[in-house]
Amino acid sequence: MTRIHAAELIGTLILVMCGIGTGIMGTDLAQGNLAIALFANAFATGLVLYLLITILGPISGAHMNPAVTLYFLLSREIGPARAGGYVAAQLAGALLAVALTHLMFGQPVVQTAATGRAAPGLWLGEAIATFGLCLTIAGARLHAPRQLPALVGAWIAAAFWFTSSASFANPAVTVARMFSDTFTGILPAHAPAYIAAQLAAAIVAALTLPKLFSR
Amino acid sequence: MTRIHAAELIGTLILVMCGIGTGIMGTDLAQGNLAIALFANAFATGLVLYLLITILGPISGAHMNPAVTLYFLLSREIGPARAGGYVAAQLAGALLAVALTHLMFGQPVVQTAATGRAAPGLWLGEAIATFGLCLTIAGARLHAPRQLPALVGAWIAAAFWFTSSASFANPAVTVARMFSDTFTGILPAHAPAYIAAQLAAAIVAALTLPKLFSR
Amino acid sequence: MTRIHAAELIGTLILVMCGIGTGIMGTDLAQGNLAIALFANAFATGLVLYLLITILGPISGAHMNPAVTLYFLLSREIGPARAGGYVAAQLAGALLAVALTHLMFGQPVVQTAATGRAAPGLWLGEAIATFGLCLTIAGARLHAPRQLPALVGAWIAAAFWFTSSASFANPAVTVARMFSDTFTGILPAHAPAYIAAQLAAAIVAALTLPKLFSR
Amino acid sequence: MTRIHAAELIGTLILVMCGIGTGIMGTDLAQGNLAIALFANAFATGLVLYLLITILGPISGAHMNPAVTLYFLLSREIGPARAGGYVAAQLAGALLAVALTHLMFGQPVVQTAATGRAAPGLWLGEAIATFGLCLTIAGARLHAPRQLPALVGAWIAAAFWFTSSASFANPAVTVARMFSDTFTGILPAHAPAYIAAQLAAAIVAALTLPKLFSR
Repeated sequence: MTRIHAAELIGTLILVMCGIGTGIMGTDLAQGNLAIALFANAFATGLVLYLLITILGPISGAHMNPAVTLYFLLSREIGPARAGGYVAAQLAGALLAVALTHLMFGQPVVQTAATGRAAPGLWLGEAIATFGLCLTIAGARLHAPRQLPALVGAWIAAAFWFTSSASFANPAVTVARMFSDTFTGILPAHAPAYIAAQLAAAIVAALTLPKLFSR
Repeated sequence: MTRIHAAELIGTLILVMCGIGTGIMGTDLAQGNLAIALFANAFATGLVLYLLITILGPISGAHMNPAVTLYFLLSREIGPARAGGYVAAQLAGALLAVALTHLMFGQPVVQTAATGRAAPGLWLGEAIATFGLCLTIAGARLHAPRQLPALVGAWIAAAFWFTSSASFANPAVTVARMFSDTFTGILPAHAPAYIAAQLAAAIVAALTLPKLFSR
Repeated sequence: MTRIHAAELIGTLILVMCGIGTGIMGTDLAQGNLAIALFANAFATGLVLYLLITILGPISGAHMNPAVTLYFLLSREIGPARAGGYVAAQLAGALLAVALTHLMFGQPVVQTAATGRAAPGLWLGEAIATFGLCLTIAGARLHAPRQLPALVGAWIAAAFWFTSSASFANPAVTVARMFSDTFTGILPAHAPAYIAAQLAAAIVAALTLPKLFSR
Repeated sequence: MTRIHAAELIGTLILVMCGIGTGIMGTDLAQGNLAIALFANAFATGLVLYLLITILGPISGAHMNPAVTLYFLLSREIGPARAGGYVAAQLAGALLAVALTHLMFGQPVVQTAATGRAAPGLWLGEAIATFGLCLTIAGARLHAPRQLPALVGAWIAAAFWFTSSASFANPAVTVARMFSDTFTGILPAHAPAYIAAQLAAAIVAALTLPKLFSR
């Protein structure tokens, strides 16, 4: 495994562990007030994105997200072979994260989520969350590259709260959450539509954003 | 549509979507504890302002707010024609945001707010929130221009909590919230006084701030 | 009134308005869960300190706090006459803030606080909060001057939570809160001991910190 | 006592005071909603780490943590004698913090914690939290040294929420919390396993991270 693949694997692992772990901790402690659980989820995920993109970005770009890798592929910044390796490392990290998080919290390692998430409004939410993520990346690369890690963290932390779907915005995260029957889980049958909305948004972003962000 | 108008439209769209969406999510999840709903609202709006001003500022200045556009018009930084185009783009983005947010959350697209917000204390709150926004912009431009996006986000996130009116501080946001019968809505009959207070504060700011912030 | 005094007055006004206003908003909305009220209080005050010191610091130093002014007087960075003018402007801003905040929230303009705050542990809390504020200022000036505004905000936001007295750490704030019978008020008879602890800590800081922070 | 030892002592003192103090304040105010207590704990600790590493880092490196000192010893950045002095100063600061915090909150100065924290999942949590801390330090030193203080704060604030053990991640903190029968306490009999997990993670980090973070 190269350093580049290690960076994608470790980054996605920590990102997914953060998402699922904060969900478990939040529901354990919040006495049913899910607003607090979601808030901790958003806060911690924003911080972790800022951290991971800062320390791993110089190694691999720190995509940690197949939709972001697709966006860079369509923008011709990386080739198909490299993109495939990225996605494989991301999925491996995401699945390893599920197992480690369940072990930490003393839960069964393998689970299947039962939380239904299927509605046109939720798919629109995923599309908006993922398009906004690409908008943030494209705008930051042009106008404030050193702030990109903080800006991506800011987008995701905010979008957790204002999109109806709680901003998965990441196919690797969506796959992982199929296997965790906790606060952030998603019924496997409902995952493909989420992933389709995310990838569609990345394609629309790759087609439209160059018009807005050009010198 | 020029890139400048697109930036104002997209920026205001995301800002308004964030305000209304976090309000819906907060009231859905917070079991009636509106402090948590307001907190999420403030936190996400502060982050989104930091993000949008950073990535869109180099294109249009990222006003996303007719009161800010009025302040720059009175400060002779932009002319009347350009200001008119900005306000039109801001209003279009704000109204589009209402529709998208309602679609995301599976609500009727067109709504009329029923939340009354009329009292001299609330109008004073709006005036203070908007004056403080202009103070932040004027001070940041002179003393810390690269931190302006974070400073504007800091002002609004804080002012949500310490002004009695929860800091709309933006006529485009006020217009949009007339059409959303959710946490952040405002009865249409009560909107003109809010907008008058906001514009009056921008005028006072344009007249007084140059005395404080001069070299 | 000079620009310097205007900066101290406006800065202290906003700082005190933030402290008292977030307290009122928090208790109004939090259904008795004072942890959330205190959290909003800390969060907003940290942001406002970062903002005010950034935009007003280049004008007056943005003390906004007689204990900080005393620390700089003892450190021979300002003279007694200038220090006196600063404190007068700070107290004027603090009292004006009480009136404006009460007007915003539709409360009687003049109030007397009834919340008792007298115990050796609370005085120790004030001493620690104020000493830590001076430590932050001294360390930031030597090692990270451009981050001073954010560091002061970080200290106060954190100290709100870990000191038993909720970190007034500021005689002008203490005086103001005597006149607000709300969440952040203090019984006038209990204010002198708070102020004494704050000033004593500033004196100890001026005597000891130069040993730690020297080149 | 040298300035270096003073910096380690003061830094660890404030860090531990923050951890225990926010726990007491949170449980006092949060009406049993421990999610809010943990949130305040995480928020304040993240801010204090950012602050302390910024102002004390240039003096001693601001380890404030024997596991970090061990990591630097194994990385041959400091020698055994210096490491021993660091750990002694850290433990002295940690124990002094317990006494001061209890005095502030009017509690018995000497206490013994009764909160059991023993389970393989918790030890895994401590190992992950400590490994992630070393990963953050190693990555920040190579790729973003000026952001190291903020990145360490971000890691710990997030890890409080997504590790099952609430991220002590610090043997000095663990020792201190044996002596506080409050929210963040740990039964003395359960402390050695926590400390072992922390030190083991630092050793694994020192062996593996150079492969990921090399030029």
